[in-house]
Amino acid sequence: MQDRLRNIKLIIEYDGTYYAGWQRQKNALSIQEVLEDALFRITNQRIALTAAGRTDSGAHAKGQVANFYIDSKIPADRFCYALNALLPNDVRVLDSVEVPHEFHARFSAVSKLYRYLIVSHPQGIALGRQYYHHVSYPLDIEAMIKASVYFEGTHDFYGFMSTGSRVRNTVRKLEKIRLDFQSPFLYIDLLGGGFLYNMVRIIAGTLIEVGTGKIRPDDLPAIIASRDRNLAGPTAPAHGLCLMEVYYD
Amino acid sequence: MQDRLRNIKLIIEYDGTYYAGWQRQKNALSIQEVLEDALFRITNQRIALTAAGRTDSGAHAKGQVANFYIDSKIPADRFCYALNALLPNDVRVLDSVEVPHEFHARFSAVSKLYRYLIVSHPQGIALGRQYYHHVSYPLDIEAMIKASVYFEGTHDFYGFMSTGSRVRNTVRKLEKIRLDFQSPFLYIDLLGGGFLYNMVRIIAGTLIEVGTGKIRPDDLPAIIASRDRNLAGPTAPAHGLCLMEVYYD
Repeated sequence: MQDRLRNIKLIIEYDGTYYAGWQRQKNALSIQEVLEDALFRITNQRIALTAAGRTDSGAHAKGQVANFYIDSKIPADRFCYALNALLPNDVRVLDSVEVPHEFHARFSAVSKLYRYLIVSHPQGIALGRQYYHHVSYPLDIEAMIKASVYFEGTHDFYGFMSTGSRVRNTVRKLEKIRLDFQSPFLYIDLLGGGFLYNMVRIIAGTLIEVGTGKIRPDDLPAIIASRDRNLAGPTAPAHGLCLMEVYYD
Repeated sequence: MQDRLRNIKLIIEYDGTYYAGWQRQKNALSIQEVLEDALFRITNQRIALTAAGRTDSGAHAKGQVANFYIDSKIPADRFCYALNALLPNDVRVLDSVEVPHEFHARFSAVSKLYRYLIVSHPQGIALGRQYYHHVSYPLDIEAMIKASVYFEGTHDFYGFMSTGSRVRNTVRKLEKIRLDFQSPFLYIDLLGGGFLYNMVRIIAGTLIEVGTGKIRPDDLPAIIASRDRNLAGPTAPAHGLCLMEVYYD
């Protein structure tokens, strides 16, 4: 029986503005739900999707990856077209391919690239405001870059995790963090093998505090080592966050 | 009395998705209305705004210009901040400055730069979809570039105007048209001293027909000369259109 099941991988882009995040919820619409509902309409089978990253309510994805098992002869690349015909236009399946049975969107992932978008401008922006966290005061970008380096490498990021997570091991390796400022747009790219709950948004919020001078760059090693959520900056808003790409071997 | 009135120029960015265009309407919300209402709350005066271009319902602006006369001692640069505090976040005033009494946002404008945005991709995009006209089929960009050149210069653009306009002289000079393709995004920039009703959208719609092979590039001179709206392409959707900048001497 298992042998007849094929494993299909989807690459998904979505504007999370009107969704309660990736994961299916009881009383709110999720990305997972609209995708699983569309799969049901196509296959008449109740199919469970597994995603690489369970993005927050309001966060976006340019390259989310999900997989599902199905007993069907539909060619893998047809799912992409069939799904898009049924999906709302803020959720797009960019690609659908068959993958080996053991492929798991989350556990097979080697690393993920998140981008946090900030617009630093007294008046803000109207066009694309759904994708940028607006900061009306000037930011010391040099200080932020200096501070960001301290996040790289393997650390216990316990202080950069929101409560509500039941994760036991809070040690994570942040492969790379890179800030790119193209005034008024500031892009913060984070590449890592795994991220704790709200970790990217808390790092972004902490870097903003560095940018405004509330935290000095050289204080960061002590803040990380303290494992104290209260010493880190606030959780930056979800709508500035985008899951850009998921990497596999 | 007139002498006491100061002339204030505003630079305005807006996401037109939820508006019935620039111009005040009886039964729908316009950009002009939200701005004039905010001005009333600041000054307690009913102030009429004059815009450089009356953008269509659903069209956007990155650099709309408007001016108004006011009897007030409020420093010109304060209008920007005061307005943004009252405006919805899809309308932003980027700058406010005092200008000579004779400045008129529309009649003083030397030229305007419009951009028409297309995304040419089988699945479309989710992020930023409000700002791109989605074309699911491939486009022959080379043919479109070749065709676009025929629009440049002074022509009677009568065939590239929607009915409903009461303009008598339909001769316009298109200074420059430039296509820039960064797959899957196609940017069509049009610079000119004046544009007829829906002219940019009809030019975009015509170029798309060239891109799909329905119209040959070399047919364009005859189509323009015919002054026949039916020979040009359809009016491309408003949400792909953005008024980028208005130039003054």
